[in-house]
Amino acid sequence: MELKKLIRSVPDFPKKGILFCDITTLIKDSKAFNYVIDSICEHYKGKKIDKVVSTEARGYLFGGALAYKLNAGVIPVRKPGKLPAEAIKEEYTLEYGTDALELHKDAIEKDEKVLVFDDLLATGGTALASCKLVERLGGKIVGISFLIELTELPGKNKLKDYDIFSLIKY
Amino acid sequence: MELKKLIRSVPDFPKKGILFCDITTLIKDSKAFNYVIDSICEHYKGKKIDKVVSTEARGYLFGGALAYKLNAGVIPVRKPGKLPAEAIKEEYTLEYGTDALELHKDAIEKDEKVLVFDDLLATGGTALASCKLVERLGGKIVGISFLIELTELPGKNKLKDYDIFSLIKY
Repeated sequence: MELKKLIRSVPDFPKKGILFCDITTLIKDSKAFNYVIDSICEHYKGKKIDKVVSTEARGYLFGGALAYKLNAGVIPVRKPGKLPAEAIKEEYTLEYGTDALELHKDAIEKDEKVLVFDDLLATGGTALASCKLVERLGGKIVGISFLIELTELPGKNKLKDYDIFSLIKY
Repeated sequence: MELKKLIRSVPDFPKKGILFCDITTLIKDSKAFNYVIDSICEHYKGKKIDKVVSTEARGYLFGGALAYKLNAGVIPVRKPGKLPAEAIKEEYTLEYGTDALELHKDAIEKDEKVLVFDDLLATGGTALASCKLVERLGGKIVGISFLIELTELPGKNKLKDYDIFSLIKY
């Protein structure tokens, strides 16, 4: 399936000079959305996955569907202050500045197998922070999957210790 | 399945006097998460659903899974300024103040059948705003589903024109 045709490029969003990959035009297409979820799950076929971890907010649209298809639990990594119970925090740098992510302390149990999903691999900051959060709780990263990978950015180097699967590459 | 046992009550979050229903403890349980998605889809069995609309951010965890299971497209309703392309806006009042939601103008086509999902029915503000956004684009609301309904709050009155399905009632 030609997924690239379904992605809309929006210039100067969220700020001047950034060419934003708008995936809403892809996921509103039921066939494309189903294809994306099935293709990612196919990559992990035969591997046990206990939890799918995804990041706020676009990542959740995929994280829930992947968890459902993989018979896994779904875990939200959130921006600081959004999780109601005791959480751990990781700071990271992202394409447009710095930020932090949090994960509930009871989200992952020791040795649970975790798939991390993020919609975009650019600098790799959010994915790496998510992996660190999972590992601090004793979880094992089965792999990290992305809908889109920007191959000209150095994100992948940061994540070289992990199995990476990206569905669309630019 | 006894879903209520899996929901964590967090006092004074996000502010003093609010007893927050934390659903992360439910959705990290793979069986419970699958049960929730299957039960909601079962309610709409035999009905055509083209798009599942859900609200930022927790709603997306369910919206994606529902869309996948229902072979529908998934549409994010977002907080103002987050959508990259041309959008329409609806203001609403919520439990802790006022806010607004936006929907891309090209998210829904005329006469498309739409399921709206929101994790919590409290004042009904976000769900009503989502429905209005969909209807302004010509979409038809098949129903609104909630994970949790707080029956003591007047939210349901606001939504009396719609078919409402809530999985857990307090």
